Amino acid sequence: MDQTVILKNVRPWGESATDVVIREGRIAEVGPATAMVEAQSIDGGGAILLPGLVEAHTHLDKTLYGMPWNRNSVPSNLVAKITNERNSKKRIGLDPARQSARQVALSVGHGTTHIRSHVDVDTEHGLAGVHGVMATREKYADVVDIEIVAFPQSGMLIRQGTKELMDEALSVGADVVGGLDPCSMDLDPKGHLDVVFALAEKHGKPIDIHLHEPGELGIFTTRLIIERTRAHAMAGKVTISHAFCLGHNDYLAIGRLLEQLAETGIAIMTTGPADYACPPLIRTLDAGVTVCSGSDGIRDCWGPYGNADMLERAVFLGMRNDLDRDDDILRAVEVVTTGGATVLGLEGYGVKVGDMADLVLIDGETLTEAVVSRRPRPLVMKRGKVVARDGAPLFTTE
Amino acid sequence: MDQTVILKNVRPWGESATDVVIREGRIAEVGPATAMVEAQSIDGGGAILLPGLVEAHTHLDKTLYGMPWNRNSVPSNLVAKITNERNSKKRIGLDPARQSARQVALSVGHGTTHIRSHVDVDTEHGLAGVHGVMATREKYADVVDIEIVAFPQSGMLIRQGTKELMDEALSVGADVVGGLDPCSMDLDPKGHLDVVFALAEKHGKPIDIHLHEPGELGIFTTRLIIERTRAHAMAGKVTISHAFCLGHNDYLAIGRLLEQLAETGIAIMTTGPADYACPPLIRTLDAGVTVCSGSDGIRDCWGPYGNADMLERAVFLGMRNDLDRDDDILRAVEVVTTGGATVLGLEGYGVKVGDMADLVLIDGETLTEAVVSRRPRPLVMKRGKVVARDGAPLFTTE
Ligand SMILES: [Zn+2]
Ligand SMILES: [Zn+2]
Repeated sequence: MDQTVILKNVRPWGESATDVVIREGRIAEVGPATAMVEAQSIDGGGAILLPGLVEAHTHLDKTLYGMPWNRNSVPSNLVAKITNERNSKKRIGLDPARQSARQVALSVGHGTTHIRSHVDVDTEHGLAGVHGVMATREKYADVVDIEIVAFPQSGMLIRQGTKELMDEALSVGADVVGGLDPCSMDLDPKGHLDVVFALAEKHGKPIDIHLHEPGELGIFTTRLIIERTRAHAMAGKVTISHAFCLGHNDYLAIGRLLEQLAETGIAIMTTGPADYACPPLIRTLDAGVTVCSGSDGIRDCWGPYGNADMLERAVFLGMRNDLDRDDDILRAVEVVTTGGATVLGLEGYGVKVGDMADLVLIDGETLTEAVVSRRPRPLVMKRGKVVARDGAPLFTTE
Repeated sequence: MDQTVILKNVRPWGESATDVVIREGRIAEVGPATAMVEAQSIDGGGAILLPGLVEAHTHLDKTLYGMPWNRNSVPSNLVAKITNERNSKKRIGLDPARQSARQVALSVGHGTTHIRSHVDVDTEHGLAGVHGVMATREKYADVVDIEIVAFPQSGMLIRQGTKELMDEALSVGADVVGGLDPCSMDLDPKGHLDVVFALAEKHGKPIDIHLHEPGELGIFTTRLIIERTRAHAMAGKVTISHAFCLGHNDYLAIGRLLEQLAETGIAIMTTGPADYACPPLIRTLDAGVTVCSGSDGIRDCWGPYGNADMLERAVFLGMRNDLDRDDDILRAVEVVTTGGATVLGLEGYGVKVGDMADLVLIDGETLTEAVVSRRPRPLVMKRGKVVARDGAPLFTTE
């Protein structure tokens, strides 16, 4: 039988200090704990207690983190970046298993306990990425949960054979059907979305589509996604990642679109990008749309930014959306916690009795102060076991 | 006579490792140093050597850093924020001397050696801010250089008596004439700018105007500033802070404006804000305009963000301007170093023989890697004296 752990003197969501008793990987009690002979006691030092942060959109398979610095001189357009990346992977020796493990360590050190990773599937590298991230998922199963999205980064229809590889990826272990810019990448929105939804139906799996298409074009594609989500009865199982088009400056059109997204239970993932129009956070949440967030690519062939800290991500969401009020900043915190948990369909996510003991401690005076300060996390726990302390993971990677 | 210091094994701007000999607050030699009996030797550990970072736009007098957390529930509009701040200062006990010192410690810990601070001048608080920051400037003269901009935060003409206070501020110790949104704040662009330029002429001091006015409105005001800069022969002595209007989506109009800014030697300060249109960095630099950057307000009555780290600021500039290529990111580093030095008119800024020994060491594989990673700075030096180590200042504040 698992040992009982008492996490003493912690403040759930920044509220009053209390103790949390953990048994068999779950929260067994919340409240002043009496001493127990058999229990391991951990002093929380009055830190804020949150459920583990949710990284709902990243690319574990292709971070260059921990590899020699990759000098980037790639032109600033999508196809050039995709082509450069596809052609660079072998030359620079990018090993998806090794690299995804490195990013897992970085993430867990920052308090992330759940990750949804898009993983490249293309005719050049086949399922190498999927197998690599699956190896990491298995090896680090006790420190993090990883969900894999089969992601047609180089296009679905414009590269013959990709569709079949996507099908195979979903058979061998991918959890989610990915997609990418049905208009601007494949130049065939109907064809692209038909494949995505057919794969989802065949495998009984949810969908998460990268949609960078701007303005009216993205609004058009979003309508096609809404229509198919209704037709396939997939409410609550579709996510649109980025959805830059929701940042389009047409108040009424965006209002109508948000209403339909809420109605069809389509979730939105936004990183709060500073350099693109993007979904207005508070308006999107107020419309009843579930919103999650993620780091997207971290130090990869696309660009050098990112550190896998989902509290920093909440700050970026806040800065992007002009959120200065405490109550508004707490909405951004929702996005990187419960929003992500909803999108990943996590059961028992939270800090109540019965919830999973996937937890992070954060130093700070108030939750808002803790978020903007982003100090190293004193403690991270996965299913009741301590997996990181003082910002550093307690496990090593290659 | 000052002691000689040898900074061994450092990489100027990320180039090959060398040694730097410092005497009397300046760089005396760069190259392999021979052992000197009398010299103090410091091991740079192969870190990257940059001249001290330049914080070219902040508000030292009103940070709440180190005070009890200020819960913000102020509506998100400019006048509401200005009014709230003016009315809150006494209630919450904001002491400009104490608070500016705290921000200085934060800045110096991150490698900043020069600060330009706008300081509120208004009829409610008079010159309390200016005197407070002047006290800090004197007390911490050996760790940082501070330039004070007399800043009419609550408006110049709409509050009778402000003009006279501005005049007094410039007489008692402010170095630069500030201004604020001549159209939208004072509703009298001619009147506002006439006062600003008259004060500059009277006191023989440069100008730095906050200009948040968007689009066509800001372009109009910028033209008025250009016209007066020519008329008063103030080339190289005027800065426009924020200049959101340069982010206006009118390619040709912005091109014409940039050309005139370059011609009249007007500098631009941009924080790389994620939530507003703002100057396109590379285009502005390519037009020959000097660009500097700053933290703007840090954890104040306006909002909770900011940590005074000018390397993080370079990352924000990069993320805002879609700068993924190394060469482009280095342009952002220029902005927080030499760009700021040009705006502040610093003599001997750099890491060459004869330059001031205002220096910062940064850990990293390459300069770009160091910037995106933003690790704690191993060492900061002001005029040849070590003032911070491992991210922490070596002096205390109240
Ligand atoms: Zn992505
Ligand atoms: Zn300012």
